[in-house]
Amino acid sequence: MPVNGHSLIAGQQVSGENGTTFGFNPATNEQLDPAYSLITGDQLKQATTAAADAYPSFSTLDPETHAGFLEAIADNIEAIGDELIIRAGQETGLPAARMQGERARTTGQLRLFANVVRQGDFRGVRIDRELPDRAPLPRADIRQRQIPLGPVAVFGASNFPLAFSTAGGDTASALAAGCPVVFKAHNAHPGTGELVGQAVAKAVKDFGLHPGVFSLVYGPGASIGQALVADPAIKAVGFTGSQAAGIALMRTAAARPEPIPVYAEMSSLNPVFVFEGALKGDVQALAQQYVTAVTGSSGQLCTSPGLLFAPVGELGDKLAVAVGRAVSACAGQTMLTEGIAGSWNAGAEALGSAAGVSLVGQGTEGATKNAPAPTIFGTLVRDFVTNHVLHQEIFGAASLVIRYSSVEELIEAVNRLEGQLTGTLQLTEEDYATAAPLIPALEQKVGRIIVNGWPTGVEVGHAMVHGGPFPATSDSRTTSVGSLAINRFLRPVAYQSLPQELLPASLQDENPWHLNRLVNGLVEKAEATV
Amino acid sequence: MPVNGHSLIAGQQVSGENGTTFGFNPATNEQLDPAYSLITGDQLKQATTAAADAYPSFSTLDPETHAGFLEAIADNIEAIGDELIIRAGQETGLPAARMQGERARTTGQLRLFANVVRQGDFRGVRIDRELPDRAPLPRADIRQRQIPLGPVAVFGASNFPLAFSTAGGDTASALAAGCPVVFKAHNAHPGTGELVGQAVAKAVKDFGLHPGVFSLVYGPGASIGQALVADPAIKAVGFTGSQAAGIALMRTAAARPEPIPVYAEMSSLNPVFVFEGALKGDVQALAQQYVTAVTGSSGQLCTSPGLLFAPVGELGDKLAVAVGRAVSACAGQTMLTEGIAGSWNAGAEALGSAAGVSLVGQGTEGATKNAPAPTIFGTLVRDFVTNHVLHQEIFGAASLVIRYSSVEELIEAVNRLEGQLTGTLQLTEEDYATAAPLIPALEQKVGRIIVNGWPTGVEVGHAMVHGGPFPATSDSRTTSVGSLAINRFLRPVAYQSLPQELLPASLQDENPWHLNRLVNGLVEKAEATV
Repeated sequence: MPVNGHSLIAGQQVSGENGTTFGFNPATNEQLDPAYSLITGDQLKQATTAAADAYPSFSTLDPETHAGFLEAIADNIEAIGDELIIRAGQETGLPAARMQGERARTTGQLRLFANVVRQGDFRGVRIDRELPDRAPLPRADIRQRQIPLGPVAVFGASNFPLAFSTAGGDTASALAAGCPVVFKAHNAHPGTGELVGQAVAKAVKDFGLHPGVFSLVYGPGASIGQALVADPAIKAVGFTGSQAAGIALMRTAAARPEPIPVYAEMSSLNPVFVFEGALKGDVQALAQQYVTAVTGSSGQLCTSPGLLFAPVGELGDKLAVAVGRAVSACAGQTMLTEGIAGSWNAGAEALGSAAGVSLVGQGTEGATKNAPAPTIFGTLVRDFVTNHVLHQEIFGAASLVIRYSSVEELIEAVNRLEGQLTGTLQLTEEDYATAAPLIPALEQKVGRIIVNGWPTGVEVGHAMVHGGPFPATSDSRTTSVGSLAINRFLRPVAYQSLPQELLPASLQDENPWHLNRLVNGLVEKAEATV
Repeated sequence: MPVNGHSLIAGQQVSGENGTTFGFNPATNEQLDPAYSLITGDQLKQATTAAADAYPSFSTLDPETHAGFLEAIADNIEAIGDELIIRAGQETGLPAARMQGERARTTGQLRLFANVVRQGDFRGVRIDRELPDRAPLPRADIRQRQIPLGPVAVFGASNFPLAFSTAGGDTASALAAGCPVVFKAHNAHPGTGELVGQAVAKAVKDFGLHPGVFSLVYGPGASIGQALVADPAIKAVGFTGSQAAGIALMRTAAARPEPIPVYAEMSSLNPVFVFEGALKGDVQALAQQYVTAVTGSSGQLCTSPGLLFAPVGELGDKLAVAVGRAVSACAGQTMLTEGIAGSWNAGAEALGSAAGVSLVGQGTEGATKNAPAPTIFGTLVRDFVTNHVLHQEIFGAASLVIRYSSVEELIEAVNRLEGQLTGTLQLTEEDYATAAPLIPALEQKVGRIIVNGWPTGVEVGHAMVHGGPFPATSDSRTTSVGSLAINRFLRPVAYQSLPQELLPASLQDENPWHLNRLVNGLVEKAEATV
């Protein structure tokens, strides 16, 4: 599949009239062809207008066609073959195995949402039946369903060029909800974006859908993003990226004449709490797992553990030594961009020179460009709770080991944290009583609590929460990974006393879509499911 | 029960140190005793701090105690007896029958939420079971539940001194979710608020709950409200009132270091669309029903129909004449406050003097103060779509009859509307085909569609949506009436690989709370329900 360097607006290749940009290979800092043309505000308007035009037909698609469309996107992404893996690797510095895994996750997530669409619980059907004889007043027949919000603007992440980008979780869940998507291409992986965009556009075409269901636009940095969020046709925003950019979009969305929801996944330190029992086992293995979680994908994961709390005393000392040894054996890996590597260096320097912070261990620089040496620092909990510098996320392979002397200190540290995606406990049965009070404190700060695992490797399932209190995300009521993510793009509508002929299919008595329904407040399972 | 004129902060009567205010009888403009003392910012802090302190125990209450607590509030409100009806009538000008009905709705809503708490679906339990043998990677056991957001600030409405005030829908749903409530008393019905506040506080005490679960504070107008929303202990806001006040709270909440959700129900024109078939029946009855919906409770209902679209031609003329006759027989009823009556007069004057607007009919002024003559105006759809003045809500007994000549004109009019709570169709079977295209247009603008009924009289059930796109509400993804309202105050948390001993009761294998659960993506109904 050729990459052409242009936006895909409602099924058409559109040459931008606002300058050009290039992808770069971060392993060499070399520019990659082709040049990508950037669109103007007027060209953006074509995409948002087409998305609004596509809404009426796309939002009412029958479940089978709708699910088939999502599956076709997955098939089309697979059909690109190695070209996608190669291009994504060139543009991001991420190894082929990681890209293959991420592709599987991306297509798996599209297929999960296809099943969600077929199964239909997200339609939230509730029926309160008529009570004509109720005193003092009869009750009318009232029915409720969830409808899609409207066109959604999606901004992808640099660190997951497939799973959190063009046809990633936000796009998949918005399309599954029945919302057309205008995707702002990430300029750090433009070719990867275009290949995937072509796969989506082909599915739109093959299924005979309105071409405005999907557009992929390349634009000049922040300005086109702000214009997209401000566009009256857009009814919600999905974003994964930096806190500064996410907060800027939140402000724009809140200041619109009609404010809209922004689902921004932004930053997280992902604290890990190690209890004494866990240190009576294989400390070397624990240290190695931690270092692997810190350094994998060059530490550029939203769930990479940035903090590890270890007890003071002999057992904790043993862990710190093992961590130092494990990280010193690690070579740096290429980071996503020169800019990101620069930020990492600045962050690591600030942390390393903060009062009370020492070096636990450091690896070596990688052989490529932009591959700084993985570094793990150490401090005491009393320094952590009083110095905000120690709470800054360093995106990349850096982490901070914090020594504590009581669970009360841990709880105080948790209470001082900002919102996070995850919190992890390493413990054995002897630690349960000690660790228990930490859990309610953590619930107030994170979206996911893990025991004896690591926060990296986010499962795409029904029970997953990839979200958390601000500033981990803009909206703690949601998740950006897993089937619950579809709820972000829906709103309820009630229908009172409508004749069957005027009711949408999902609410009709004969239940043609075989949906589970809440009838008079109680779950009624569909007799047959498709 | 004596009213004392003081705030109730965490179970204690607190004398405010920031001046006083009084209730007024709007039928006479006379001041009502006692004086209400207004709190300072420091006194407010006591309430929010107590609410935060109450959260850990209240948010984890067992379902039976939790439900019993909500029922006790309902019982305690009933136990106040006629004193409540009398006081509410004095403070609002609303007749006793209306107050009795509203009391029944308020207690019914508390008991509905008690059942929601016992039934437990709102806990959103999802379990993805471990797949240890899955290739290439095993799946961990992941479980999800919804937890309460934290302390909620609630602002009541003037027009529903019981059902949308101190222990109204927002308070009931927040308490049902497990969120402590700090209620900002409405200064237009301070005594009603205090009586109900005492009923809530008594239930808190009798159930041995932390006293911070509920506070009722009297404060100086907007400033204390802004301080409450800005308080870091507050995690969500429920509001019913004017658009200006609601938007001011939204801005404050969005500008916080940690932004929080605001659920503001603000304004609505509630358009009614009359089709030709409906005019071939009893036009007098239709006109009378419309006028009753416009003038009931002096038109001070969020769902009062402010617009009625009628066809041009003979049938529509007949309706207009009947409407004029019906309204001319209506006497004005006391409005809630002198200020509200003044705003009604200004709004009616602006609408009546707008280009293309004529008088359809007018009633007579009431015998009391603040009881202006109900008034219905008329215009053509072409004037409506071009003049924004005709889109302003006039809170009170006024409405606008708009004459149209095709369904295309209706669709254009709907597309020009801002977000509304409701849209109503009056039709017969012969109109189905004509009316059908209006429904998807309405879905984009309203939260509830009604056929051959009237939008007033909002049923409190499971399928109700009392909400709608901005500016009807601040957040179209929610409802402020009905059991779904509880979802506003929840967020999901996932638990990965937690041992049974560390899992919350709702997620344990033995399912001690008998909850329906989504297991591996499929609904599993609880075997026994309590």
